[in-house]
Amino acid sequence: MIEVLQGGGVTSARGFKAGGTYAGVKTAGEGNLDLGILLSDRPAAVAATFSTNKVVSPSVTLSRERAARGVARAVVANSGCANCCVGEQGLLDAKEMTALAARHVGVEEEDVLAASTGMIGVELPMALIRQGIGNVRLRESGGSEFARAIMTTDTRPKEVAVSLEIAGRRVTVGGAAKGVGMIHPNMATMLCFISTDAPIERGFLSDALREAVDASFNMIDVDGDQSTNDTVILMANGAAGGTEITAGSEGADALREALGYVSTELAKELARDGEGAQRLIEAVVEGARSLRQARKAAREIAGSLLVKAMVHGRDPNWGRVMMALGKSGIDFEESQVDIFINDIHIVHEGKAVAYLRDAVVSAMSVPDVRIRVNVNTGSAVAAAWGCDLTEEYVTFNSAYST
Amino acid sequence: MIEVLQGGGVTSARGFKAGGTYAGVKTAGEGNLDLGILLSDRPAAVAATFSTNKVVSPSVTLSRERAARGVARAVVANSGCANCCVGEQGLLDAKEMTALAARHVGVEEEDVLAASTGMIGVELPMALIRQGIGNVRLRESGGSEFARAIMTTDTRPKEVAVSLEIAGRRVTVGGAAKGVGMIHPNMATMLCFISTDAPIERGFLSDALREAVDASFNMIDVDGDQSTNDTVILMANGAAGGTEITAGSEGADALREALGYVSTELAKELARDGEGAQRLIEAVVEGARSLRQARKAAREIAGSLLVKAMVHGRDPNWGRVMMALGKSGIDFEESQVDIFINDIHIVHEGKAVAYLRDAVVSAMSVPDVRIRVNVNTGSAVAAAWGCDLTEEYVTFNSAYST
Repeated sequence: MIEVLQGGGVTSARGFKAGGTYAGVKTAGEGNLDLGILLSDRPAAVAATFSTNKVVSPSVTLSRERAARGVARAVVANSGCANCCVGEQGLLDAKEMTALAARHVGVEEEDVLAASTGMIGVELPMALIRQGIGNVRLRESGGSEFARAIMTTDTRPKEVAVSLEIAGRRVTVGGAAKGVGMIHPNMATMLCFISTDAPIERGFLSDALREAVDASFNMIDVDGDQSTNDTVILMANGAAGGTEITAGSEGADALREALGYVSTELAKELARDGEGAQRLIEAVVEGARSLRQARKAAREIAGSLLVKAMVHGRDPNWGRVMMALGKSGIDFEESQVDIFINDIHIVHEGKAVAYLRDAVVSAMSVPDVRIRVNVNTGSAVAAAWGCDLTEEYVTFNSAYST
Repeated sequence: MIEVLQGGGVTSARGFKAGGTYAGVKTAGEGNLDLGILLSDRPAAVAATFSTNKVVSPSVTLSRERAARGVARAVVANSGCANCCVGEQGLLDAKEMTALAARHVGVEEEDVLAASTGMIGVELPMALIRQGIGNVRLRESGGSEFARAIMTTDTRPKEVAVSLEIAGRRVTVGGAAKGVGMIHPNMATMLCFISTDAPIERGFLSDALREAVDASFNMIDVDGDQSTNDTVILMANGAAGGTEITAGSEGADALREALGYVSTELAKELARDGEGAQRLIEAVVEGARSLRQARKAAREIAGSLLVKAMVHGRDPNWGRVMMALGKSGIDFEESQVDIFINDIHIVHEGKAVAYLRDAVVSAMSVPDVRIRVNVNTGSAVAAAWGCDLTEEYVTFNSAYST
């Protein structure tokens, strides 16, 4: 049984502290923070996934290398500057940032990972970071401060934590995340940090993270735009005690479930807080031949600009859903497709049901719009998330970068 | 030498007539036409390419089947209704529409192809088509009327024609097209009809069309949204006389060039007339390892929402170009990339040149914005086209389908 911890976040698990400060990387503003550190009080098993873009930030390069060692103590993250496309200086700066953080919290430099988000093509203002990092106060209640320090165009921090019992011990999984891809394109980066006090074997940790990311963050990569800086880092420090959890051991499934819940809730929060977004779109594809096909089709539907604009206008123009489904190339027959919008059946066997249009328009006025498609060819199901496309999105993203 | 014919179009080539009428499929409006016929006065060799979406209009199914016979006399096209996702009625209606057109112009039903564009999920109003088709007057000067009859959200018709000499004979290639995919998403269909009086062998006709489409219309398929109705039909009736042109014969290259010119100009017109568009974006990728790679990268750049929004805001935020390039996955080193905006060098060896920002902003205020990227790894070059993303695009596409 997973229990959601109200107000929980990345420091809800035992043995984790965090904090954030305003160093000056971002423009000054009320409550603005732009530099944060997350620390485990003991070595933690670590797993991570990164952007697959050919161009990546040296912050990603460094973290990928260090995460491969399987163990870490801390993460230092900055917002406002992506530390990307700046030549060799980028790696030097990422390294120095971890060295500064390591000295500040008293751990080895190699045990610190880095993450950056913000403008591409400008160097990290290292003088400001050198000056500011000493102001990061690490606290067990510092998860929210850390969550705010990684924000760019996010309108609110994203935090989730759950607790569960494994072999008689209470274990906690919590995380913090910030905006993503198309959804927050100006700063174009998704960062997520998850911590747990469960003791987890490294191989299982990696597999469980991959699985959770595939079903959550990878299902909101909706415009195909891949940031150069996307990072998900999971640290498990074992502070809850007990036997190490492995793939087949007691608690493995419960842990997978908890990790899945935290990842999915954070991913949905990212979509919900999309640039200019007024509605969350949940695209569910049922009855697909395989999970891969269900995911592909769900992503196409949630990612289609035409579907996004249609949800914005509360317009049940289901031809666009059919178009996106067809474009996905999955196995199905047009004459077997059913489409539901917020549970109202609008297409049966590929043709319009004589639905009451006004009722569907009303149903689409709620904050969460669910488009459910059953292709009736198999039993696989998948969900993907996006947000509606609004005029504000365009206004925001066409503003000068200055 | 290709000569552009001012005011030329799909009936510039000898032996072609066309016309259009208002049958009532679209809402009435000044000068609105919604039903057109293009006719060759003799059997013409025909080649065609269609949408690869799994869901296609029965108009596409019928035309694909008939075009495979390699010979045709006419095309009937309607706008306002896509004749798609309407069950078995769709094929019956497409067939009837060709039968009505065949009877009206006096040819065999099997020699008539069909194309439809407009709303998905509603049946063709056959009563109106039966009533209206008799009003289509076919004329040698009717190309423009035909071009207007296929428009949906296009703000102007798109027509181009060129003439050239092959083996001492004057040959003409002309075409008409209408909006496409992301660019005209509400009606979400690209239609193009090209006619020539050159005598062309069928196999060469197909190859030459495929080649021309790959370098033009397929390079503006920018959002990945594929219409259910996309159609390009090329008819060659040989009215110019002379020996049949084959792959290796005299005039083959000149004909390829003419076909390429007509296709590319029409494709650029489609991008330029994009929904709410204020600027044409030309993305050129140079120095790629292969044509396939150059095309992939050019398409990613022209298709990126972030690049589109950046062009709208005249913002030289080149990090987005790098992001799109990296996402394409083609072979290159970040440290070898050069980027130019309207010939101003803004990135050298992967890093920002100290360019004068105001000069670039000014350079981006022109109607055609050219983003040129040299990846310096080979010699292949490709161009792709798109338009900027504006608030008007969103406003338009979120309107009720009613």
